Formats: sequence, C-alpha cells, structure tokens
Amino acid sequence: MNRSILLQSRPVGMPGPENFEFREGSVQEPQEGQAVIRTLYLSVDPYMRGRMSDAKSYVEPFKLNEVISGGIVGEVVESKSGDLQPGDKVIGMLGWRLYNTVDAGSVRKLDPSIAPLSAYLSVLGLTGLTAYFGLLDIGKPKAGETVVVSGAAGSVGMFVGQIAKIQGTRVVGIAGTDEKCEYLTRELGFDAAVNYKADNFQEELAAACPNGVDVYFDNVGGSVSDAVMNLLNDYARIPLCGAISSYNSTEDVGPRILSKLIKTRSMIKGFVLSDYASRQAEGMQQLGQWLAEGKLKYEETIVEGFDHVVDAFLQLFQGTNLGKMLVKVSDPQA
Amino acid sequence: MNRSILLQSRPVGMPGPENFEFREGSVQEPQEGQAVIRTLYLSVDPYMRGRMSDAKSYVEPFKLNEVISGGIVGEVVESKSGDLQPGDKVIGMLGWRLYNTVDAGSVRKLDPSIAPLSAYLSVLGLTGLTAYFGLLDIGKPKAGETVVVSGAAGSVGMFVGQIAKIQGTRVVGIAGTDEKCEYLTRELGFDAAVNYKADNFQEELAAACPNGVDVYFDNVGGSVSDAVMNLLNDYARIPLCGAISSYNSTEDVGPRILSKLIKTRSMIKGFVLSDYASRQAEGMQQLGQWLAEGKLKYEETIVEGFDHVVDAFLQLFQGTNLGKMLVKVSDPQA
Repeated sequence: MNRSILLQSRPVGMPGPENFEFREGSVQEPQEGQAVIRTLYLSVDPYMRGRMSDAKSYVEPFKLNEVISGGIVGEVVESKSGDLQPGDKVIGMLGWRLYNTVDAGSVRKLDPSIAPLSAYLSVLGLTGLTAYFGLLDIGKPKAGETVVVSGAAGSVGMFVGQIAKIQGTRVVGIAGTDEKCEYLTRELGFDAAVNYKADNFQEELAAACPNGVDVYFDNVGGSVSDAVMNLLNDYARIPLCGAISSYNSTEDVGPRILSKLIKTRSMIKGFVLSDYASRQAEGMQQLGQWLAEGKLKYEETIVEGFDHVVDAFLQLFQGTNLGKMLVKVSDPQA
Repeated sequence: MNRSILLQSRPVGMPGPENFEFREGSVQEPQEGQAVIRTLYLSVDPYMRGRMSDAKSYVEPFKLNEVISGGIVGEVVESKSGDLQPGDKVIGMLGWRLYNTVDAGSVRKLDPSIAPLSAYLSVLGLTGLTAYFGLLDIGKPKAGETVVVSGAAGSVGMFVGQIAKIQGTRVVGIAGTDEKCEYLTRELGFDAAVNYKADNFQEELAAACPNGVDVYFDNVGGSVSDAVMNLLNDYARIPLCGAISSYNSTEDVGPRILSKLIKTRSMIKGFVLSDYASRQAEGMQQLGQWLAEGKLKYEETIVEGFDHVVDAFLQLFQGTNLGKMLVKVSDPQA
C-alpha cells in the first residue's frame, strides 16, 4: 500500500493543512530499467513554498492535484535495473510518497560509510552545497572581514557561518531566539549572534559588527535585511539565498536599498544551487573533508512519520527548527 | 578679481540657493610648478548632492565654508611650470572659481582638435566613461537582449542607450517628458521610450519590453526602478549608477526587491567611475572612435555665466535638462 501527498490548492499567504491532501493507492510496478524506492528521509525546505504558487520563479510550480516532490533519501526495495540492487541507498528528487517507482538514472547511489544517511539531505546535500557556493563564489570572504548571516540557525545558515570561520573571518549570526543565538556562539563558534526579535536589534547588530559588514549571506529578507543594509562597508557582497520572510507575504514594503548600494558600491546576487551543477563534485569533496576533519558540525530537527510531513513543512515558517528539518519516514531494512 | 562658490550649509532634502555663498577675492599667485587656470566650462552633476551631506559615501563630503569642487575645463592664463603654457586647454577636478591656481600635475592637457572642449566633460569624460564601464562591465549586454535605462535622456543615460544599441540589443529608455521620449527614439535610435509620469507607466513599460528585461542600467532608483524590477528576466544584471530620486529624500520606502532578485537570480552592483581608473584610456579610446564613426551623438544643456552655476545645479533635480548640464563661464582667449 502506497501513500502520497498532493497539492490540493495554492496557498495565499501562509500555507495551511487545507492546501494538502493525503491519498492512498498502490505501489506502481517497475518497468524494465526502473526500481522501487522506499522513502527513508524526506526533506522539507522553505523554497518549496515558492513552487506552491504559480508565479514565475526559478523552478516550475507544483501542479495542482499532483504529488509534491523534493529531496528524498531512500532504499531500493525492488529493481529491474542492473544499476540498482535491493538494499542500495539512494538520493533524488522524488515524490512525497512512501514508495517511488522511478528510472534508475534519476537517483544517485549513496555511500552510508561516509556519513549518516540524513547528512546527504543537509551538509552533503542541498543545504551544505548552497552555503558553500553562495558564500565562497558570490560572497568571496577574505580573512579579517566581517560576514553576517541571517537565518543563521537554519539549515543553510549554520554551514555558512562555519565555512566563513574556516576562511578566517569574523562571523555574526542573526536568529530568532536567544537559545539559537547561544547555540551559534557556543556550539558552532560564531563570534557573535543577535536575536532579531530584540527591541534594540539594530543597535545590537551594529555593536556586533564594529567594523561594518563585508559579506551578508541573506536567507530571510524583510526587516532583518533592512537592518543589515545600514551597516554595509564599501564593496560589500550579498549572496541572496532566500527571503523566507517574504514567501508568505502578499505585500512587502520597506526602505529602498538602491541608494545604499550605490553609496557603498555593493553587489547583490540571487542564486540557486543548480547554477553550480557543474561544480557539485568539488563542493561535496570539500564539505566531506571538512566534516571528516571535525570542522563542520551539523544539526537536524527530525520529525517522525509520514503523517507529519505537512506539519514539518509548515513548522519551517514558525522559526522553531534548529538546523535542517527532515522527516524520518522509515528505517532502512537492509 | 576672482569669484568662488562655497558650501554655506548642508541641505536637508532638496538643496536651495541658501545653501551656497558667492564670495569675491583675488586670484592666488602661482608658486613654482603651478599655473593659473581660467574656467571655461564647469560641470554640475547629481552626485555632488551626496558630497553636500556629511553622510558616509564614496567620496569625501564637501567641507562647510569651503569652495565646492567638480569637473572643469579651463585655459592656462599664467604658468610657472614647464608642463603648461598659456593658452593650453586642460581638464581637472577644480574649485568652483573663475580662476584656480593649482599644481600643473593636477590637471590634464586636452586636444581641442579631437572634439569640442565641452565634450571632455560629457562623452569623453565622466558621463561617457560611466556609461561605458557600467553597461559593458556590469551589465554585459548580449545581442538580442533587452536593455532598459532610466534617466535615459540624462547625461549618462543617453550614452548607455547608444552603446547598448551598438551591442545589438533592444533598448528601452525611461524619461520624464514626452519630448525627451521622442528625442530618444527619433534622434538617438532607442527602440522605445516610456514616460514615467504616464498614468499607466507600468503597463507601457511592460509593453515596451515584450521579452522582459535583461539589463537595467539604473540612474534614478525610487518608484521608476520598482516598476522595472517587476519585469526582470532570469539572470538579469543591474548596474546601479545613481538614485537621483532618493538623493533629496529623507525617507524612501517602497516594495522590497530581495525576493524578486532571488526568483530571477539577478545581480545588482553599485559602481563609481573611479573603480575603473586603470581602464580609463581604453574607454576614452573606444568612445572617441565611436564618436568619430558617427555612432554616438551627444547633447548638452549649456547655461551661460558663473552667476548661474548654483541655478544650473539645482535644475538637475527638476528633470528639465536634456543631456549633460554644463555652465559656460567664459570663452577661450587663445
């Protein structure tokens, strides 16, 4: 018996359970060259909110009444392909289903001896690579500079900060609770962390950046970014990774930034991981090495059970998760 | 007898005559290695508004009760330097004075046979070079793409559009009167021009850019730029040259743009001509060649008389000038 989650309606503003539908059905029989993949870990990510709208964006919108897809680590349970054997662990962009029946070429085999399976959905996957390329290729931090990252306790942000530390910079994280801020400085080695919900956030941020801001890795947009824009040094670089604060807002008004960018001759660039598809192997190799050397820590918030996939996705917008939000759907059997 | 113009007080919001003071004095005697330069043409430019504030910016603020400085073309009337002879035409960043006494090395000799003297303050000077480097180095237009330029009938904008045409792009100008728009399409070869004061500006702009916007060369910021941001194609490039709409505003609020930049993975970069100091000769050579080939037209609004320098500067913010705003202070004598 299979189960799947479909997009029932397009959210306006904040999504809710009513936008999703759980449906039951049978597992599709594999054709020649195909395999059946049982879902072990399923990734829920803020960018998916964009695909739930039908507005123009960098990925195709999800279709109404079709199964939602995202990053999944799974186990091969049946195979009609010579490339995959039952028990193999794989990763791919698959449907939110208990079982996906797919062409063998659409998933990639994992080596569970290098890192736990879930790591392939965080540090060695989308989020680690996003941090790596956005920070190093667009942010280009130099030793001694100040790097600020918003959404710092989120799945991308915590890698941004740690990679920035490896580069020899001063790292300041912005997060939404004092506990997260303490986690960043105590556990991840950030030089400072500021709670954006503090009354005097702008002043605290300025105090945490006595030499201004050279690189701002932005995951959130909105008023948090407004505050950072006041502190830019000349020739600052701003990799734009996300704007989670805006994803659910139909109106988003704030101080215009163009004149600040001119005065400082700063650069902003939006990016998406697929821009770096050709360099993925390089990124995974470097991240794996830092992981092995103990230079990168990672954190996961793991929700248990396919029943809670939608809840886990909705929680992303409450700011409660620490690190990568994953759903553990089942244990490996082999 | 010498005359000069000083910054009397720092403008708050729109500058007015009360911020300036005309002062009379004597012409300073040249020391060994110095020369006395009589002002022929004096350039007034929007960026000077920034120097009148004491806020952090890319150039030092003007000092209160000191003479304002800017681009000036002049004639040597007395010289105690072997490098300059009376009658030589020179260009430099000099004081708003009838006569400047300066070190010979602080000015550059001009060849009046290549172009009229005033051209060295526009197409072959600050504005032509600004258009050249901002468009080609940051905007990187490719043949067949759509380039939009705001402030299109201004001193930088009209070169941006013409250089973009030379690159084989579709060029759309934004200006503030129908006359300017007609000038852009009829005289300068723009493919379309839109009046931002039209009631349905957003719709007209969209109609003028049926394939979206690949490069947006921004001279104005504010609500004009808000409209362009709605039309960005994927991987759009936005050279930020000016934000004249914001220079006199103490509060500048509008739609936030970060989520639009992410969705399109666009790039914005503020720049200033001095970023390209090492490539100035290349720029002048290319601009001079296009000028000689008849591929670049230029326009000047020339105000006559030193008495009207402040008026000419203030007029920049009324949107009435076509092309480069200059003040002709005196005729060459040699």
